[in-house]
Amino acid sequence: MGTPDEQIYPVATGRAAETVKQHQQPQDLIFYAGWFCPYVQRSWIALEEKGIPYQYKEVNPYKKEKHFLDINPKGLVPAIEYKGKALYESLILCEFFEDAFPEHKPHLLPDDPFDRAYVRLWTDHVAKQIVPAFMRTVMAQEPEKQKENLEEFYKALRTISEKAKGPYFLGEQFSLVDVALAPWVLRDYILAENRGYSREAAGQKWKAYAEKLESRESVLRTQSDKEHYAEIYARYLRNEAQSQAAKAIRAGRSFD
Amino acid sequence: MGTPDEQIYPVATGRAAETVKQHQQPQDLIFYAGWFCPYVQRSWIALEEKGIPYQYKEVNPYKKEKHFLDINPKGLVPAIEYKGKALYESLILCEFFEDAFPEHKPHLLPDDPFDRAYVRLWTDHVAKQIVPAFMRTVMAQEPEKQKENLEEFYKALRTISEKAKGPYFLGEQFSLVDVALAPWVLRDYILAENRGYSREAAGQKWKAYAEKLESRESVLRTQSDKEHYAEIYARYLRNEAQSQAAKAIRAGRSFD
Ligand SMILES: N[C@@H](CCC(=O)N[C@@H](CS)C(=O)NCC(=O)O)C(=O)O
Ligand SMILES: N[C@@H](CCC(=O)N[C@@H](CS)C(=O)NCC(=O)O)C(=O)O
Repeated sequence: MGTPDEQIYPVATGRAAETVKQHQQPQDLIFYAGWFCPYVQRSWIALEEKGIPYQYKEVNPYKKEKHFLDINPKGLVPAIEYKGKALYESLILCEFFEDAFPEHKPHLLPDDPFDRAYVRLWTDHVAKQIVPAFMRTVMAQEPEKQKENLEEFYKALRTISEKAKGPYFLGEQFSLVDVALAPWVLRDYILAENRGYSREAAGQKWKAYAEKLESRESVLRTQSDKEHYAEIYARYLRNEAQSQAAKAIRAGRSFD
Repeated sequence: MGTPDEQIYPVATGRAAETVKQHQQPQDLIFYAGWFCPYVQRSWIALEEKGIPYQYKEVNPYKKEKHFLDINPKGLVPAIEYKGKALYESLILCEFFEDAFPEHKPHLLPDDPFDRAYVRLWTDHVAKQIVPAFMRTVMAQEPEKQKENLEEFYKALRTISEKAKGPYFLGEQFSLVDVALAPWVLRDYILAENRGYSREAAGQKWKAYAEKLESRESVLRTQSDKEHYAEIYARYLRNEAQSQAAKAIRAGRSFD
């Protein structure tokens, strides 16, 4: 039986289901994914943006099946096998796609060294500030704590929106910052419905930026039906999830 | 007066003092550094390895002086100004040096895309597992907690030593994994003297790897006298430090 986290809806739905269907053929690059996972969605958006050929394989990472642990000993999706060699960690995969498929455009990192570092700096802000604050707000039980974490989430969103040139972070160029952030924009309705969040409360700049991110074609193409995301977040909202992220956050450990 | 963390010894000593002296001339790249800081030392090792021209400027980041906050709004060292533009975060700076000075060898990231990702994966292990476990072991007050954190530290060290080819992580090539890790190897005597740590207890492979790292020329050249490091760690060992890292760890927040 295992943990309740294992009982997730088994496959992608909506637009994401179509995308999965188009990526069943064997390829040099096998993408081990969970349709529900925002970290997976980062790497998936990158693959779709760049038009890299890949084979999609659905994995339930909570089952910790041996074949998957052989690929990622951490037991986390996303992971890939490329010509028989395994890699994981969503943002490292995105950088790998840049390095391994330079002829596939758009480039998610600019060519100029300073601009590349600038993109990495703000991607780091997404990973270390925005995402953890989102998760803590979802998992907090006392109204006091929910409010405190929501304020931190707003603060992190305001910081990035002030720097965003619009429509995307760098301006017209869609970059790794946008890729890293978009999956949590799609999921922010969870906070709106359960924790009193609204995009307006983080400012008009945030609202405009978020709307651009959620309507990007690669983001839409990797999105499943909302009700299935909600099923998963229900356990987080009651602070009952047993994922590594949930445990780390409860133990006051870093997880990004 | 500010926090006690402000009262740090003002300048580099030992071998590091010589290196500072050789880097006083104005250059396109200004390196804002604190001699005592292990994150600074990462970027400093990278600069020294690659022989990039830089001007060293000592900053006490705890003072939060306006001129420095204009460079890094987070108020953390290391930071740089390159041709008038500012950047920060130790590992992002190391990648910037790779991108901006490709003619300066050695390359700390391999050329092959898969190998680059592999290096980033293990650099991530250093940042997210090894360094936080080190800090938590230093700051823990109850013997129970000290032991628990020390065990996690050993576990993270064993994981990386098992993968290390020797003499360095990748074999003969000195890479970003080694750069990211070396500063904490130099400081592990703090744990040995105060928390019952020994290199042997993490295994012979770790001991051999640690000895290689601490005797690398670029590591030695950026090292100050041990007694001055010890002064700083005294506050961490009593859990009285007021740095952002200390506060984050006490609050159960990620900091890497
Ligand atoms: N830092 C990882 C996080 C990936 C992650 O947490 N994935 C979740 C699903 S969203 C997972 O596989 N969880 C399995 C578990 O927690 O046991 C990344 O960026 O790829
Ligand atoms: N993540 C940063 C951490 C840098 C950091 O924490 N530096 C410390 C000194 S070792 C600092 O500037 N602290 C000032 C403060 O905490 O207020 C990096 O990798 O560069």
